[in-house]
Order: sequence, then structure tokens, then C-alpha cells
Amino acid sequence: MRILITNDDGWGAKGIVTLVQLMRLIGDVTVVAPDGPRSGQSSAISVNIPLRLKQIEPHIYTCNGTPVDCIKLSLNTIFANSKPDLVVSGINHGSNAAVNVIYSGTMGAVFCAAENGIPAIGFSLCDHRHDADFSYFEPYILSLTQKLLTRHDPHGVCYNINAPIGPLKGVKITRQCKGFWHKEYLPYTDPQGGQFYLLTGEFHNSEPEATDTDEWALNHGYIALTPSTIDMTDYTWRDSTNIG
Amino acid sequence: MRILITNDDGWGAKGIVTLVQLMRLIGDVTVVAPDGPRSGQSSAISVNIPLRLKQIEPHIYTCNGTPVDCIKLSLNTIFANSKPDLVVSGINHGSNAAVNVIYSGTMGAVFCAAENGIPAIGFSLCDHRHDADFSYFEPYILSLTQKLLTRHDPHGVCYNINAPIGPLKGVKITRQCKGFWHKEYLPYTDPQGGQFYLLTGEFHNSEPEATDTDEWALNHGYIALTPSTIDMTDYTWRDSTNIG
Repeated sequence: MRILITNDDGWGAKGIVTLVQLMRLIGDVTVVAPDGPRSGQSSAISVNIPLRLKQIEPHIYTCNGTPVDCIKLSLNTIFANSKPDLVVSGINHGSNAAVNVIYSGTMGAVFCAAENGIPAIGFSLCDHRHDADFSYFEPYILSLTQKLLTRHDPHGVCYNINAPIGPLKGVKITRQCKGFWHKEYLPYTDPQGGQFYLLTGEFHNSEPEATDTDEWALNHGYIALTPSTIDMTDYTWRDSTNIG
Repeated sequence: MRILITNDDGWGAKGIVTLVQLMRLIGDVTVVAPDGPRSGQSSAISVNIPLRLKQIEPHIYTCNGTPVDCIKLSLNTIFANSKPDLVVSGINHGSNAAVNVIYSGTMGAVFCAAENGIPAIGFSLCDHRHDADFSYFEPYILSLTQKLLTRHDPHGVCYNINAPIGPLKGVKITRQCKGFWHKEYLPYTDPQGGQFYLLTGEFHNSEPEATDTDEWALNHGYIALTPSTIDMTDYTWRDSTNIG
């Protein structure tokens, strides 16, 4: 079992170090992670930017690109002759539930692995702190990984697994909650009188009563396992519409 | 009808200038576009980077961020009191069909608009050249926009519309073709003997025989209209699986 690990918080973050320790119980681990924070990088790829791999210690590399760059470059270099059996990304410091999945570098790496037909799981804890406590999540990460990697899912299927802070009641299979971010910028004035903005914001849950969403599970002490797909086609629309 | 336009090739690209001319036939246009190329930026957002809006001429602004930054910042400033009625993105110089939708900054902007409940369409022509000929596509862009903006789609639904080069046979409603990129990097040696990589690659179509995909339509002279959704849940998996 050859396991490739990346994240979007950069090599050295507590989350990825924890994930490496766990995955070494399952297989042979190779890390190719960004050389610093890349939160919010989604599936961004570096176009016309020289990418470099730097070996830190045996089987541990950093890359100056995005999480997706890490996966793509790994598959074309270290794993050029034989793909890894599994890609795991995280453990992210912060939630990737609901629409956050769209913006997540953690999940961007997962989607890239899924594109390449590799089983892939993203793990995230709803705690942004650099010293976040992953201990309640750890046994679930091990058991869920072992369950999910024996499956033979169709092309493009992958997993977005989020956990709340603290003791956990179990695992719910969930769907992506509908919602949106708002109040997203704080305005500032620079010394020359120019105006600039910095990203912040609040997430608005558009369906707080629904009990089958990732947000509901997280708000009620459960791990949210959202099976995900890189096929973004809206089949309901396709199958019901004739635009003439 | 208030229309917000962005792209990922940056303000001044022929594609967005063409789109502005077309959309001015339908409504009042505001442009908020990146100040330079942002291809491959997906749904990336700028975290801890000061974002600035620069007014170029009346109703035309550039932003130093990603396409998604352009939409988010617009909605929180220019459109803070009243959302636009429509967001259109493009016309991209290059295909956003198949898995390219995942990496596309053009479509990242569309997904962000969809998150915010705004009808949104991405237009792309399968021609990377800066002087690409959009003339065959133009009448379809107008007619498809007018048809699609009268709909009341569920939250998260949006459109990825791609056109091939040259004369067009019509429009096909399609799904996202399965496939993957490979041979993605060229290696280089720098003057100090270090190795770096630059992104390139070839798209592999995993289902060339399927006649309902965006790739099939594009390869046969049709515009591919793929209804898309920001809900990445795999409902087939969810409804068929019990992980115990």
C-alpha cells in the first residue's frame, strides 16, 4: 500500500504530521506538500511558474506550488511509473464542509487524485488553530481510510470527511449543505489614502433544519462523510430541460 | 437587467471585450476583471492579500485578485445593496470542457455567483490564441443568455458553455466528459544545476465513443451546454452505500 499525502496548510502543520503518523500504520507513505500555507487555493494550478520539488528527508518533499501542483508533479515524477494506491489530504485546520469544498486546497488535491483514478480522501477538523487537537478524530481517520480504500468506486468519486471539535458521536453519511458566505471583506486605508480589502466573512447555512447535511452532522457532534464527485454536471437539469 | 462580467484572461483580452459588447445589447454592464491573466486559478481566493479595485473607465474595474475575488469583492462593494441579475464570465480563450471545469478560473467565477444565488454562465471558445475568432459564437452567446436568464433554477445551478472553432452546427445539451490530463510537465535545468518543471500536458478522453459528452459535441462542430452545479455530493454513492 503506497500512500501519497499532501495538504494545503503546508509541510510542518500539525495536521499533516498527524496524518503521516496515522498512515504509516497502513502503508508506505510519501509526502509531497506545499512549502507554506496554501489555504483557499481550490484546484488552482501554476501556469508558467517554475515548480520545484525539494527533498526534506526520505520520502518527504515540499513543492513551491499549490496542493494540486503537488499531486500533479508527484504523479509525473516520483510516481511516474506506478501510481500510488491512495491519496490522503489534510488533516486540514478548518472546515471544508458545505460550499467550502469549492474553495478548499485540501479538496483540490483530492479531486486531482480522483481525476487520475486514485482513491482519495480529504480530512478536515473544524478548528483553525495551529495547535488543534486531532486526537478524537484520529481513530476514525484510520478506520474510515481502511474501509474506503477497499472499495472500487467509479471514476471521479472521492471523499470529503470533516470532524467537529471534541468528543465524537460517530459518522454520518451526508450531503453538501446549501449556503453561502457573506460580509466577506474588511476595508482598510493605506498610508497613501488608497483603499484595500482583506478577506473575512460569515457562512450562512441556507437549510439549518435539514438533518442530512454535513453542517447538521458537524453541529451535532458527528463526523460528516460526504461522498463527492468531480463530475459537476447537473443531471436533473439535463434530463428535464429542452432549451429548443 | 444589471450584468456583471468577469473572466480569467484579464481585462483587455479580446474575449471579455467581445462579451461586454454583446451584453450591452441586453442590459447595463459592469466589468470587474483581473488586472492580468489568471488562467488555471479555479475557485482560488486570496487569503491575507490586500485586494484593490481600480476604476479604468465608467463601469469598468480591474482587481489584483483571482476571478472569484472579482466576484466576491464586487458583491460586497459595488453590488452591496443589490445583487446583479446575471453574471457572465469569459469569453475564455481555451476550452473549459471535461475536467477543465475544475481548474478553470472562468468557471470559478460562475460557481461563486451560483453560490450567491445569481444566474451565471461561463463562455469559452476552444482557441487559446489572443486573436481568437469569436464571430461564429457571438449570436449563440446572445440567444443562449436570453433563454437561460428567464429560468428560475434551483440554488447552485449554473452553465458551462463551450464552442469549437469555426462554423457551428447548433447547440447540444451535454454532460462533463470523463478523462484526465497526463504528460503534464517538461523538466528544465537552471543555470545553477537545479531542476524545475513547467506545466504542459495532454488531455486523455476516457470515453471517446460516448455521444452525450461536451467533448463529443465540440469535436463534431456543436456548442456544448453543460448544466452544472456547485453541489459536488455524489448522490448515487450516498443512496447506495452503508459503511456500517
